[in-house]
Amino acid sequence: MTKTAAIIGGGVIGGGWAARFLLMGWNVRLFDPDPEARRKMGEVLDNARRSMPGLFDIALPDEGQLTFHDSIKDAVAGASWIQESVPERLDLKHEVFQSVEAACEPSAIVGSSTSGFRPSQLQQGAKRPGQIVVTHPFNPVYLLPLVELVTTKANTSAMAEQAKETLTSIGFYPLHIKKEIDAHVADRLLEAVWREALWLVRDGIATTEEIDNSIRYGFGIRWAQMGLFETYRVAGGEAGMKHFIAQFGPALKWPWTKLMDVPDLTDELVDTIAGQSDDQSGAYSIRELERIRDANLVAMMRALKGQGWGAGALLNAADRAGEKLARSLDQIADPAQPILTVHRAVPLDWTDYNGHMNEAKYLQAFGDATDRFMEIIGCNADYIAKGGSFFTAETHIRHIDEVHAGAVISVQTRCLMGAGKKMHLWHEMYEGARLLATSEHMLIHVSLETRKASPPGPEIASALTRIASAHADLPMPEGAGRFVGQGR
Amino acid sequence: MTKTAAIIGGGVIGGGWAARFLLMGWNVRLFDPDPEARRKMGEVLDNARRSMPGLFDIALPDEGQLTFHDSIKDAVAGASWIQESVPERLDLKHEVFQSVEAACEPSAIVGSSTSGFRPSQLQQGAKRPGQIVVTHPFNPVYLLPLVELVTTKANTSAMAEQAKETLTSIGFYPLHIKKEIDAHVADRLLEAVWREALWLVRDGIATTEEIDNSIRYGFGIRWAQMGLFETYRVAGGEAGMKHFIAQFGPALKWPWTKLMDVPDLTDELVDTIAGQSDDQSGAYSIRELERIRDANLVAMMRALKGQGWGAGALLNAADRAGEKLARSLDQIADPAQPILTVHRAVPLDWTDYNGHMNEAKYLQAFGDATDRFMEIIGCNADYIAKGGSFFTAETHIRHIDEVHAGAVISVQTRCLMGAGKKMHLWHEMYEGARLLATSEHMLIHVSLETRKASPPGPEIASALTRIASAHADLPMPEGAGRFVGQGR
Repeated sequence: MTKTAAIIGGGVIGGGWAARFLLMGWNVRLFDPDPEARRKMGEVLDNARRSMPGLFDIALPDEGQLTFHDSIKDAVAGASWIQESVPERLDLKHEVFQSVEAACEPSAIVGSSTSGFRPSQLQQGAKRPGQIVVTHPFNPVYLLPLVELVTTKANTSAMAEQAKETLTSIGFYPLHIKKEIDAHVADRLLEAVWREALWLVRDGIATTEEIDNSIRYGFGIRWAQMGLFETYRVAGGEAGMKHFIAQFGPALKWPWTKLMDVPDLTDELVDTIAGQSDDQSGAYSIRELERIRDANLVAMMRALKGQGWGAGALLNAADRAGEKLARSLDQIADPAQPILTVHRAVPLDWTDYNGHMNEAKYLQAFGDATDRFMEIIGCNADYIAKGGSFFTAETHIRHIDEVHAGAVISVQTRCLMGAGKKMHLWHEMYEGARLLATSEHMLIHVSLETRKASPPGPEIASALTRIASAHADLPMPEGAGRFVGQGR
Repeated sequence: MTKTAAIIGGGVIGGGWAARFLLMGWNVRLFDPDPEARRKMGEVLDNARRSMPGLFDIALPDEGQLTFHDSIKDAVAGASWIQESVPERLDLKHEVFQSVEAACEPSAIVGSSTSGFRPSQLQQGAKRPGQIVVTHPFNPVYLLPLVELVTTKANTSAMAEQAKETLTSIGFYPLHIKKEIDAHVADRLLEAVWREALWLVRDGIATTEEIDNSIRYGFGIRWAQMGLFETYRVAGGEAGMKHFIAQFGPALKWPWTKLMDVPDLTDELVDTIAGQSDDQSGAYSIRELERIRDANLVAMMRALKGQGWGAGALLNAADRAGEKLARSLDQIADPAQPILTVHRAVPLDWTDYNGHMNEAKYLQAFGDATDRFMEIIGCNADYIAKGGSFFTAETHIRHIDEVHAGAVISVQTRCLMGAGKKMHLWHEMYEGARLLATSEHMLIHVSLETRKASPPGPEIASALTRIASAHADLPMPEGAGRFVGQGR
């Protein structure tokens, strides 16, 4: 049976909860007195629909039904989960909980998105305090897995388990915090950074942009995969966490931040940290953790490269600065020879656990070769912006030999035919002189407006004809024109 | 002419500098009195060689030459860049600089990797203080782009420009900090978090692992792409940065961290932050920033998914929990029909800037379909671990129609032939009833030890035969056996 969630407060956070529940197949009943609530919810849902389902390699359930309600009483009817995301005022939250508990199922879980209040504060005055917990998510709620689940003695462990199960089932990672403090855990770290960052801006040391760059080009990328302690464990090297603390412990007494109320690094605290770090990461050696970290960083930085953002934008700029291959016909020394269209190392994230390049990455490299060939004949970003391009209609790949991460590969490209709307290309991939794969492609020139075949512009047609004629004198490559399964 | 760098201190940080210079084509002269220096350097270089070159989509220059030297005097000969990475003791660093300046070129730049010392402290007592700057990198130095360049009045602006140019040329992002403070910028933020995290462990609120999870499943992923202020600008929504500060400003007075020495949020400071944030991010609307952020997060989380780590490991677990497709032959209702082998949404990072799925991602989905078919006939992780698998020898793809991000696609798979070492597959990709692409593959069973063709195990052979016979009664699919460019 389809489950039902009630969302009280449909701003950025409440809307994010609603979107996550909906896309995970729950029906959602929303209460928000804001006259703009429908528009705002629609915008959050649009963002969630384009980004969240593709995170998974399986199809999500059919989207649930979203309904808007004029009262809390109406919204919570039949809901097994009720999520409160109203502004951070305790009196307001108490009012909401009062209306909720008057109308909801006693078995429903009532989660609060509060950033700062402790669950015992929220439970004050409730008839059934055991129903109320903190479930603090992170924006964007429909993408980031973390939710802090904070409970008190009023909550049974069965109820906490049920909350964890529900949160996990909609794709969250519930971090169960059993000892409540103001602002829970993650926001304490965020608040410390926020305060220090305010000092840096106030004292004119760095601008907001410089501070952001100091995060996203450095430790931010590390923290996205390992967090603080595991990162330091790796940095401590073979000597481990105790060594790291011994080395950096003295800095606690130095004015390295404006925030000076620091705990004493007693032997007991050092042992606690080192022991917890062993429990957390001890299954891996430092060398293994280094390699895991590096593969994670490469994969994430290359992911950002695909988006042209952050550290990825820097890498794209470095590529452009170091570019050696031809980008136009007049840079080709001998147009009668195959053209070098790719020259690069095999990235870690192109390989499987054995270090061999994955099937689809061959086509990625061949696709890059096609893009470069198109650029050389003048079908570049400017031309494409004006509404013409070549689309691949057909591809035939032969895998001849394997290649490992880090190997330098090159692709040589021949034009087998180029006339009218058609372009027939032949790529060969090598590591040194060793042939790794071949790829044959038929491309059709299209109008990007109609998405239909159309003749290319005259400059493109002329450049294509020139290369096709020059390449026509080369012997036909072995393997061209093959069909799958053809005998040798 | 090949440039030369001298590296003084070859630990994790110095070794990382050496590796980056070498892989960027510089010769490196290393001084480190540690008898283990060669082994340690070799290990850092191994890690760098497998991970760094593939960050770029171009080939890096030929690797430079690494030499080991017994004295600083010898190491700095001919070096245009000298990098000091010895332990954090000012007396030790002063000794190193004395030996360096006695032997090095006056035009050489002497960078210090110090985490905490101000450049004016390092320059004390130097004959040519203008040669010395802080260039503070982040571990792993061969991957992360951030380096903090901190200068004093003793450094000319021409020298600072030259330093920036060199750092950029080896793939760094130099963040130039002109107002020196202890620990520069990034480490002040790190130190604030470190101090707060120590309190959390000491007070028994969270373990090291829980703290790491609170980072890497939440704000860590955000910070890897936007940093602190731009993330908050987006969170503030349409009302912008001033609104955000107004909303969260009061928390500065609350005990949300143990670190309580906070700056006053004067109107002037609020205006400064809001103005700097406009300069930094004002070119984008909040809606645009949200979409950029979401695309970045999806790409990075999916990158981690490929590595099976952090937020990506959570997503893999969610996939397994929600899996509906068959994983074995006995789960197939009607083996005489094509088998559903992929059912998923098109992720944002599979698409180009127009939102259309990229060429190589079609093969990624078809490759996933092949993997699933292999699993169904028993060629699963256990079987592969025992040393057998199928390798793709040949692939033919036809692109029939386009598909957008977020669309739900499915792949239906037929076995055209399965006998001996050969497996001939036919995949059709659909969005609903709309045919998007077909893919034909010849796979060969191999021994993973010899990497040569070998017969599959008897259970695999029998399952394959069973499906192949059942599928033999289906009509031959249109387009099977085509070669590239064949008429219709």
